[in-house]
Amino acid sequence: MSFNNDTIVALATASGAGAVAIIRLSGEEAITIANAHFKSVKNNKSLLKQKTHTIHLGHVVDGERVIDEVLVSIFKNPNSYTGENVVEISCHGSVYIQQEIIQLFLRNGCRMADAGEFTLRAFLNGKLDLSQAEAVADLIASDNEASHQIAMQQMRGGFSSEIAKLREELLNFASLLELELDFAEEDVEFADRTQFKELINRITFVLKRLIDSFAVGNVIKNGIPVAIVGEPNVGKSTLLNALLNEERAIVSDIAGTTRDTIEDELVIDGIGFRFIDTAGIRETKDVVESIGIKKTFEKMEQAQVVILLFSAGEFQTESQRLIVEIEKIKNRFPLKPLIIIANKIDILNTSEIESLKSKIDNIHLLSAKSGIGVEELKQKLISFVNTGALRNNETIITNTRHYDSLLKAFEEINKVKEGLEFGLSGDLMAIDVRQALYHFGEITGAITNDDLLGNIFANFCIGK
Amino acid sequence: MSFNNDTIVALATASGAGAVAIIRLSGEEAITIANAHFKSVKNNKSLLKQKTHTIHLGHVVDGERVIDEVLVSIFKNPNSYTGENVVEISCHGSVYIQQEIIQLFLRNGCRMADAGEFTLRAFLNGKLDLSQAEAVADLIASDNEASHQIAMQQMRGGFSSEIAKLREELLNFASLLELELDFAEEDVEFADRTQFKELINRITFVLKRLIDSFAVGNVIKNGIPVAIVGEPNVGKSTLLNALLNEERAIVSDIAGTTRDTIEDELVIDGIGFRFIDTAGIRETKDVVESIGIKKTFEKMEQAQVVILLFSAGEFQTESQRLIVEIEKIKNRFPLKPLIIIANKIDILNTSEIESLKSKIDNIHLLSAKSGIGVEELKQKLISFVNTGALRNNETIITNTRHYDSLLKAFEEINKVKEGLEFGLSGDLMAIDVRQALYHFGEITGAITNDDLLGNIFANFCIGK
Repeated sequence: MSFNNDTIVALATASGAGAVAIIRLSGEEAITIANAHFKSVKNNKSLLKQKTHTIHLGHVVDGERVIDEVLVSIFKNPNSYTGENVVEISCHGSVYIQQEIIQLFLRNGCRMADAGEFTLRAFLNGKLDLSQAEAVADLIASDNEASHQIAMQQMRGGFSSEIAKLREELLNFASLLELELDFAEEDVEFADRTQFKELINRITFVLKRLIDSFAVGNVIKNGIPVAIVGEPNVGKSTLLNALLNEERAIVSDIAGTTRDTIEDELVIDGIGFRFIDTAGIRETKDVVESIGIKKTFEKMEQAQVVILLFSAGEFQTESQRLIVEIEKIKNRFPLKPLIIIANKIDILNTSEIESLKSKIDNIHLLSAKSGIGVEELKQKLISFVNTGALRNNETIITNTRHYDSLLKAFEEINKVKEGLEFGLSGDLMAIDVRQALYHFGEITGAITNDDLLGNIFANFCIGK
Repeated sequence: MSFNNDTIVALATASGAGAVAIIRLSGEEAITIANAHFKSVKNNKSLLKQKTHTIHLGHVVDGERVIDEVLVSIFKNPNSYTGENVVEISCHGSVYIQQEIIQLFLRNGCRMADAGEFTLRAFLNGKLDLSQAEAVADLIASDNEASHQIAMQQMRGGFSSEIAKLREELLNFASLLELELDFAEEDVEFADRTQFKELINRITFVLKRLIDSFAVGNVIKNGIPVAIVGEPNVGKSTLLNALLNEERAIVSDIAGTTRDTIEDELVIDGIGFRFIDTAGIRETKDVVESIGIKKTFEKMEQAQVVILLFSAGEFQTESQRLIVEIEKIKNRFPLKPLIIIANKIDILNTSEIESLKSKIDNIHLLSAKSGIGVEELKQKLISFVNTGALRNNETIITNTRHYDSLLKAFEEINKVKEGLEFGLSGDLMAIDVRQALYHFGEITGAITNDDLLGNIFANFCIGK
């Protein structure tokens, strides 16, 4: 990804019509270009003479033609998001006006911003390190409390400052180790081996904690996959609706905010769950059906939690078959958290319920229709997520790229550790230390290359 | 609609995720409330001490919890959109963050804004007159050049200042007429009848022009309805696609801007056309089919332009039937602009085309597939729209409410005119003049009531 110093423009707010839309310009010429198409309402103000962080009322004009009445915000290099001159134009939110203004600037010295290019420029100008820049995209994508909290922490630099600090200490030792090379004949040790060992242990500890956090971070970022296994009539969609309804009520309290509801996503206590609807695994000789069963098993494999949903009536009439099915699944996925639900228990009487409980261990009694057992189910689901790290505000890794770099750094640090134990000479250890430093640098962006940057920022939305 | 002085909050940008979203607060306490949940990045800045039209970087916090890093814009009473204290918070555009910030303020002294309430407050605080406020909604809804131009002109007050000026002159005469009442015994005329006649003529002229402009204004605002009449296989959807494709290409030039494409809407030279797909009117004895024909006629009735689409092949084999059908439609809608199209002419040879031309007057030859005749069709469509007023930048009425008030004012002014001709006494004419003044006042909002305001602002989006 080559970096140009030209002026870029893009819509910064969500696409579609709203009361207001923001069009953002960044680049050395941003203020000059905006000024050429701006006419203040009062006293012929020039944007060029205005202070940074000020707002100006006027019209965006194309020659004589007035396109819109707008507010223009001025941010001057280096006190802006990108570190360049930035102009934000707050216009009426019609799609037509948005396009007219963007096209006006495209015709007059700007080019369309690439995805993430504003944030890329912020990184290249030293306003953010790379992991902070990546957190910006995560923050925008965050749709629940947990993923928001992790992204926010990362954007504020908690994670990268920890890495940067360790990197600096390690760099210091690397220099001392390399200094020993110059005095190889004299057999001196500039790098104190005890202190060095202590540092390596500390780094190992931090790396291990960060690497371990990825498992929980990953499910939090992407939502925890839950497979619901059940035959068509056992009440899967009623259950999903019962789980979803309360959340919907909360959302619709805020008039004017709509969200694209994905039918089978649910946030419980700030953690996202993704429900995967699957068919049951009833035995069959039908080839088509047995392909279906294979798929069901695949989905269970991918899920972090499996819910087996039966109707209470089934337990009355076919309990033997169900017990066999349940055993089969337990044997196949011995380590997977499993919730066995008897739905529609409102149709059973007390003695029938007691008999049901005695037949199946830990059966979860539920009536999706009347709401019995729904809240308890939510609590059970949340209990499978390790929210300890979240509660303690610990750093959690969610980014696969960081995870990879941390794993590689961990490997190199382990080599250094072994080297220390075997009393390896400084020059040999220095090679592994340099490798570890390289992987640390990849995370913060101290070490980077165009391909890497291209990959990272291509995942951003345009306008950010 | 009752008016409160409390502080309102809403999302001002389009709903959904974007790079940036704007949350707007307005009311006496707006800055105080925002300040209570704002922590500046540097030196503990208080928003209360900042100048109007300035921007401040910081965090939105809920107690210890940081919700987002934001830019806060301050607008102080009366120098804001609403005329009250206004705070605009530019946050990361995740739906989750938008909701968290709005909920934070709802819990802490704000209430959710009603639809259009920001603009309502602007009107009540004298920042806009009523017709300007209405133009704001039109501006946001505008999706083509013509409707944008009309809304922009109205928002900038061109129309209402014209009305307000006439109203003032008329008000002056009304006072003089009413003064004559006090001196009724003495038979004096304070209001110069010649000047008064001149004014009434001027008002009549302006009102007539504005009333006449509604026809063109209305179609421009809502798009010009075009009925395409044709049997299923004559190529209606290919034609629509051929008409739409070029426009789509223009739109997709701007990466990052998506628009909700309504399949059958098309903008030609800045004018919107709405295509209504209808079945043909082939004679039949089938009851269901004849209901269909009735519907087709209804749709033709509603349309401003009718396109009759036949395939060229039909003219070869069934020309007699088609000629009868065409005559039938011409007789039924003698004044309606009609375009008769022979589609798929690429399958005909030259002599066949000549024969076709001789059979049907003004037949439009077209091949939707190869693009022959598509551009000419666009030109024909645009020729039906009277764009003269638009080109001359004349005031055009698009609002039904304004149209009604203008009609009523016109009626009253006509009574005054007749009164003048018959030498009616001042006191009697004064009644009609007052009525006319009332209707003028309705347009600008000088005369208003809660129901009227409620109706107007209910059509706004929330956040404006």
